[in-house]
Amino acid sequence: MRQEEDLLGAIELDDTAYYGINTLRAVKNFNLTGRRVNIELIKAIVQIKQAAIITNYGIDNISEDKKEVILKACQEIFTGKFDGEFILDALQGGAGTSTNMMVNEVIANRAIELLGGQKGDYSIIHPNEDVNASQSTNDVYPTAVRIAALKLLIPLSEEVAKLQEELQVKEREFANYLKLGRTQLQDAVPITLGQEFSAYAETISRDRWRLFKVAERLKQVNLGGTAVGTGLNAPRKYIFKVVKELRNITGLNLAHAENMIDNTQNLDVFVEVSGLLKALAVNLNKIANDLRLLSSGPRGGIAEIKLPKVQVGSSIMPGKVNPVIPEAINQLAFLVISNDQAITLAAQSGQLELNVMIPLLADKLLESLTVLKRGVKIFRERCIEGIEANKERCEELLEDSLGLLTALNPYLGYKLTTEIAKDVLNKGKKVRESILDRGIFSEEELNQILRPSQMTHPGIAAEKLYNTLKARK
Amino acid sequence: MRQEEDLLGAIELDDTAYYGINTLRAVKNFNLTGRRVNIELIKAIVQIKQAAIITNYGIDNISEDKKEVILKACQEIFTGKFDGEFILDALQGGAGTSTNMMVNEVIANRAIELLGGQKGDYSIIHPNEDVNASQSTNDVYPTAVRIAALKLLIPLSEEVAKLQEELQVKEREFANYLKLGRTQLQDAVPITLGQEFSAYAETISRDRWRLFKVAERLKQVNLGGTAVGTGLNAPRKYIFKVVKELRNITGLNLAHAENMIDNTQNLDVFVEVSGLLKALAVNLNKIANDLRLLSSGPRGGIAEIKLPKVQVGSSIMPGKVNPVIPEAINQLAFLVISNDQAITLAAQSGQLELNVMIPLLADKLLESLTVLKRGVKIFRERCIEGIEANKERCEELLEDSLGLLTALNPYLGYKLTTEIAKDVLNKGKKVRESILDRGIFSEEELNQILRPSQMTHPGIAAEKLYNTLKARK
Amino acid sequence: MRQEEDLLGAIELDDTAYYGINTLRAVKNFNLTGRRVNIELIKAIVQIKQAAIITNYGIDNISEDKKEVILKACQEIFTGKFDGEFILDALQGGAGTSTNMMVNEVIANRAIELLGGQKGDYSIIHPNEDVNASQSTNDVYPTAVRIAALKLLIPLSEEVAKLQEELQVKEREFANYLKLGRTQLQDAVPITLGQEFSAYAETISRDRWRLFKVAERLKQVNLGGTAVGTGLNAPRKYIFKVVKELRNITGLNLAHAENMIDNTQNLDVFVEVSGLLKALAVNLNKIANDLRLLSSGPRGGIAEIKLPKVQVGSSIMPGKVNPVIPEAINQLAFLVISNDQAITLAAQSGQLELNVMIPLLADKLLESLTVLKRGVKIFRERCIEGIEANKERCEELLEDSLGLLTALNPYLGYKLTTEIAKDVLNKGKKVRESILDRGIFSEEELNQILRPSQMTHPGIAAEKLYNTLKARK
Amino acid sequence: MRQEEDLLGAIELDDTAYYGINTLRAVKNFNLTGRRVNIELIKAIVQIKQAAIITNYGIDNISEDKKEVILKACQEIFTGKFDGEFILDALQGGAGTSTNMMVNEVIANRAIELLGGQKGDYSIIHPNEDVNASQSTNDVYPTAVRIAALKLLIPLSEEVAKLQEELQVKEREFANYLKLGRTQLQDAVPITLGQEFSAYAETISRDRWRLFKVAERLKQVNLGGTAVGTGLNAPRKYIFKVVKELRNITGLNLAHAENMIDNTQNLDVFVEVSGLLKALAVNLNKIANDLRLLSSGPRGGIAEIKLPKVQVGSSIMPGKVNPVIPEAINQLAFLVISNDQAITLAAQSGQLELNVMIPLLADKLLESLTVLKRGVKIFRERCIEGIEANKERCEELLEDSLGLLTALNPYLGYKLTTEIAKDVLNKGKKVRESILDRGIFSEEELNQILRPSQMTHPGIAAEKLYNTLKARK
Repeated sequence: MRQEEDLLGAIELDDTAYYGINTLRAVKNFNLTGRRVNIELIKAIVQIKQAAIITNYGIDNISEDKKEVILKACQEIFTGKFDGEFILDALQGGAGTSTNMMVNEVIANRAIELLGGQKGDYSIIHPNEDVNASQSTNDVYPTAVRIAALKLLIPLSEEVAKLQEELQVKEREFANYLKLGRTQLQDAVPITLGQEFSAYAETISRDRWRLFKVAERLKQVNLGGTAVGTGLNAPRKYIFKVVKELRNITGLNLAHAENMIDNTQNLDVFVEVSGLLKALAVNLNKIANDLRLLSSGPRGGIAEIKLPKVQVGSSIMPGKVNPVIPEAINQLAFLVISNDQAITLAAQSGQLELNVMIPLLADKLLESLTVLKRGVKIFRERCIEGIEANKERCEELLEDSLGLLTALNPYLGYKLTTEIAKDVLNKGKKVRESILDRGIFSEEELNQILRPSQMTHPGIAAEKLYNTLKARK
Repeated sequence: MRQEEDLLGAIELDDTAYYGINTLRAVKNFNLTGRRVNIELIKAIVQIKQAAIITNYGIDNISEDKKEVILKACQEIFTGKFDGEFILDALQGGAGTSTNMMVNEVIANRAIELLGGQKGDYSIIHPNEDVNASQSTNDVYPTAVRIAALKLLIPLSEEVAKLQEELQVKEREFANYLKLGRTQLQDAVPITLGQEFSAYAETISRDRWRLFKVAERLKQVNLGGTAVGTGLNAPRKYIFKVVKELRNITGLNLAHAENMIDNTQNLDVFVEVSGLLKALAVNLNKIANDLRLLSSGPRGGIAEIKLPKVQVGSSIMPGKVNPVIPEAINQLAFLVISNDQAITLAAQSGQLELNVMIPLLADKLLESLTVLKRGVKIFRERCIEGIEANKERCEELLEDSLGLLTALNPYLGYKLTTEIAKDVLNKGKKVRESILDRGIFSEEELNQILRPSQMTHPGIAAEKLYNTLKARK
Repeated sequence: MRQEEDLLGAIELDDTAYYGINTLRAVKNFNLTGRRVNIELIKAIVQIKQAAIITNYGIDNISEDKKEVILKACQEIFTGKFDGEFILDALQGGAGTSTNMMVNEVIANRAIELLGGQKGDYSIIHPNEDVNASQSTNDVYPTAVRIAALKLLIPLSEEVAKLQEELQVKEREFANYLKLGRTQLQDAVPITLGQEFSAYAETISRDRWRLFKVAERLKQVNLGGTAVGTGLNAPRKYIFKVVKELRNITGLNLAHAENMIDNTQNLDVFVEVSGLLKALAVNLNKIANDLRLLSSGPRGGIAEIKLPKVQVGSSIMPGKVNPVIPEAINQLAFLVISNDQAITLAAQSGQLELNVMIPLLADKLLESLTVLKRGVKIFRERCIEGIEANKERCEELLEDSLGLLTALNPYLGYKLTTEIAKDVLNKGKKVRESILDRGIFSEEELNQILRPSQMTHPGIAAEKLYNTLKARK
Repeated sequence: MRQEEDLLGAIELDDTAYYGINTLRAVKNFNLTGRRVNIELIKAIVQIKQAAIITNYGIDNISEDKKEVILKACQEIFTGKFDGEFILDALQGGAGTSTNMMVNEVIANRAIELLGGQKGDYSIIHPNEDVNASQSTNDVYPTAVRIAALKLLIPLSEEVAKLQEELQVKEREFANYLKLGRTQLQDAVPITLGQEFSAYAETISRDRWRLFKVAERLKQVNLGGTAVGTGLNAPRKYIFKVVKELRNITGLNLAHAENMIDNTQNLDVFVEVSGLLKALAVNLNKIANDLRLLSSGPRGGIAEIKLPKVQVGSSIMPGKVNPVIPEAINQLAFLVISNDQAITLAAQSGQLELNVMIPLLADKLLESLTVLKRGVKIFRERCIEGIEANKERCEELLEDSLGLLTALNPYLGYKLTTEIAKDVLNKGKKVRESILDRGIFSEEELNQILRPSQMTHPGIAAEKLYNTLKARK
């Protein structure tokens, strides 16, 4: 055991622990969720430390020896070697100070160790004076949240692009599968299954564009603003160089916030970002719901498509296979929607120079990005790719559908067509027969008008015939 | 009384009523909120009718007589002359069909009247066949929601711009008011009151930019897609011309949706828009909260600023004046945040070719746009403009603040500075005295370091002295 | 025009206006939603004024003349005669002070008028000194919200009871309609349509019980607590009598809060109440969704039930009738859910001795109560009552359903039954045939086991046979 | 490696794995959050298995050998010995089937092992036929969620009770600390610090009562209802005995649902429960906010109380100590509020005989219960217990406060008192002086009226004097 001391007194730490007194106090203070700080956030902070150290070295603010060993420690930590040290709870008071100090302490102690010192001997490398030099949690933490979010955006964007492409594959595959369109769950006019998938692809393409825009929104960082955004204690030269350094290290297109005071205290950008993720969630939810409706059955539902079977469905009903992937996507969407509420609640709570609720916001935002990335991939690989159409069923349900009558509207007007619809509904007649009975059209004319394939394209059905008949009047 | 008839039978209507059987049935079906359909939405539908009629006339799909009289009716209605006819409840089933039919009926009956006919004699002008020609509720209604939203965006954007400008006026006015910065409601390092307002201005400028982007998102419309987006029953020529016509009539930069099937069924764009409005709400909420904190008192609070007095505050405590405008802004922000939830719930409920929950979405989105426009204006005119700073109080609270010690950090290191802080806190010493006692700095040096004005700018306090002292080591 | 004056100066009022300077200032300050304060809240405040006046008279704190005329004014206002005077916006800062003062002013001016004075001559009757005597907005307003909510609860409870009863009528009507049960939208084991409605009735009966409990939660009021709950300025005798008087006037079982300081500042009870209303909304939503699914079609969906036709469904598709009432109920549920968020946001914002966000909370809570009352009634009258079952369709979809195989589980075990299911699914066999082919059961035995009616009751299908066969092993 | 097979084919499993093919398929299907199923839920399912096995044995439905070994396996698992086997993601499709099957498989394989068999040899003990006998996921899972929630409620209730008691300790400790009351963050009438804590204690006592009620709501279970609540395949004797057995095993007061079909498909009870937890969250949030306001400073804020120092506050500002525990409580409250939204979204998604979104609901509900339990404890131990009052500061801010004028209202009327208030505000006079100057009261009379201690109790200040003066008129 070793001892460390702070403003509040001394505390015992395990010799093996790289974290220090600040971490341990915080672990005791915040035993809340049982979940740890998101590791992407830790890594982002480590990269900030690297940038700060290099910058400080460049302006002669830290010795070469210290710089070397701190950078080495950072690199080791970044590879994941010390992940087990970051034991702090995801939910914490203090606006992230404990998380920042935890990283400072692990880096310092590893660096001390590399120099042959004893952990806790901060006369060698000091967590605040050296590792945290020219920084404050209040500029480090919001910057780190942006970096972590940007890092998670990349694979998410890739997965969304792949989903869109797969939906387009299906669009082409099902291009000629005529089927009943449904509005308000009631039979409507014809459509193709391919058109349905084209709508899914289109909506996901919007999300793709949105994610591209999200990156724009996140790139402004307040590193260099220190405690309240005024930049107190950060050497002027440091401020101008550190973001450039951070760009190099992260490979992200980061920029200085135009107003660091604003960037320190306001979290509205994350509300915007979460709102865009929520739009993606809403779209995934819609597609998942449609797939569950279209695959309902196998005998007592719509059953126009078959989802791939990915697991046995029931512990009691043999042979039952359920749409478990879309169901998981629905829940994922609900998770992202409720995370958006947590993010909003956190973001609207800023007071004066700081918003202290940022740890909750960070936790939920990074969770949304992560589960969306995984969910979109699973949705594509384990559901969309394997969807098969049931062409016979599509045709069976389309045939003799009331929606076909809509094509008669331009010919007969809404009122007369409604009369025919009444006949069909009330007398149980066939659609075609019911029209022919009235002697308005010849069988050949009706065949021209009531072609479902044609009804899936813009225009009046059999527009030529329509014009001929209109001219005749 | 007159009688009208539909698929379900006949119904009596008051002779004075311009609305018809569809409206009256719907009024009885949806007696829910007691609030009517947003009048901006009605007006947008009227403009769509104008565009459709003109287009249909241009392709020889309606007679000149009918066109003339329908357009005249539309113009009258657009001016607000028949606002009292639009009696339908804001909340309704049917994906907006009842709202669309209400507009069709009022236009038809007014046009019939203008032609000297009896209301309800739809052989003269038919609500469906003439007024609704080439349209479906499913393309009219989502298009109308976009138009109404875009129309409300314009004055909102203007108000947001004015708010930003006013905040910048205050930024300049208070540029030299040194005061205590506060993080986590605890005394932190110095800042100026002007800097605080600069952060407010910056955050509002982001909202301004966002609203600009919102317009982009809303401009794609599905008019011409009819029932499910395939365009059935809309003549091909009509489809290509009607949006152009609508652009002329509305003066909005509208465009054809790339995929009308998607645009008919998916409402994710509104989730995106509402998310951006929510970001504005979050920012307004933060500013309102700060103003309430900073003006707390007059004697038992922070009291660094004074809000203009706009009404007497208490029915029991004479002389009390409360921050009622910021309080209203807080509630407005909560309203917009909860509207975002309603919008999300509606948007995630789409099923197959339609999302039937769009009336709720429209009602809440248009409400958010309206209350934000009004609230931002009131916030500026009745609160921000009249804010006065209490310079003496600002200085009083800054003086001898513990946060000043932060400037010593680069000179003495975190540990030793902490020792001094302990002294000040525990022994009730003055900050300056506590440092001088230690004999580290001369009084003149300390004067250079502890200058609050300098601590509101980037860099180490008294950086020259710092470099001199560092060089000396 | 007349002039009134307050701490902030003089203002002109229309001679006809019964409201006064406080109201007019507030109207200008809070032009936000365009909706007025809920009239039920106004009425509740009027009743509080009555109770306060009677109590003050009883303790010799106001003259008989004043008492008489103020009570007369209150009675007139309560009947709705002056509803047009209550012009204030529903959303307002000031914790309801403006609403309370508006009522004080209208009462005072009407009382002055009754005494032959000129409106605005508050030397005759004073809004604060007389009408508001012994009160503060901070005890009047929270008390009034409770009264208004309790008043709206009564008809809501009655409607919920009627809905439950109607669902039970349907339960009995459909008791023998065998049909396919569905889990995860996939065919499962048999159930009766009556059982489905019994589940709806049961869930609504829980809501009925909950609403009964809601009343319990709302009955504690802080009237007498004045500004912060300490009761300053309210004569001791008044405090003990006023709630008794309020009980008489309202007919509600109100009680003194045990801790008036708590009751003044904390709004958690409304969160609890809104949470219970949300549970009702969730149940209505589920039932509405089920009805939409079960009535989907008429030819391309489940179509096991038919909803009553209440209006024509489409402006373009003749003959289409949509489930508009359940669709309205869905949106109503979403409204109540998002109101719950507004209520929560308001309730969590209390600061020290008051929660200033109560006007938003009141507005949304009273809206939820109102729309639920109306929606539940409409749901019953215009949808549930007229539901018809399609017996043939129910039987058609049940017949040969894979779920029937579940009954074999106890006989054959999960593994072997799964084999049979595979056969049916992959080889397109009939269920019965597929089993008989294996020669495990005689046809007569199988008839005993595969009786759907029996499968809707607890127990192993053909339990006697099962025991015989088990004994045989 | 061993092989297992199901309807979809064969799969390889690690020899050491106790889970089986269903688990492994599900692990691959649902790699979403990286968090596992809540272990309390697993334990609850294990207890259900125990109850089912004992019941089945009692009705001669399983052999003694099997019963013994399965029970042994269950007991081992319940102790946590196999926690590492439950590797499934918390978020999953399939309504919990995968979780139920995972438990079935681990129990079966451990039992097989205990009997000397090879894992995966389900001819010895079968996960479905033996461990899951007479059950369905659809009755097991909802029952388990209730059990797990009830188990977590017990320690939460205890912690809430302790928090209330501690608040009452502070109420007594601070009973005589006179201070300024504040409404709308503006100075109002006097109160004691003890009264403020009494309000906190009262609100928490309501939560205590609510949690007591929550237990009532959760005790009805649908075990025995099997797939859709009809009880198919569960022997009648089993149904009536299994809940009794479950009561014994869990020690919880469980009861049969009155309508198992309802209890299988409807999750409104969890919405109710979560709503009550949300009310607790709202109260905790209010108290945390108040503590942060009251302890703001140390020099530039209210500073009427001091929170215990639990960790160093800033990585840059030496000596800063922040209110980190209340800040964590705020975020915890936001988490519970947003979990309530996830729970609501899940609960409103039921379709026909099942609500497939229950895994999300379970995850969030159990999280809310867990974090509240931990948070309430930390709040008490690390914050409330150590709060100290700053008596001098309380008195300093009360003295000469404008709120004192309220006591004059009954004596002078609202109008004249307002005049005095104006004088004090505008001319910067002292309150006392400003009154005496007017010669209305003698100094001795004023001393009687303006006693803050008296102003914290109900009634008119110096009521005797008031009556004397009134009689004199």
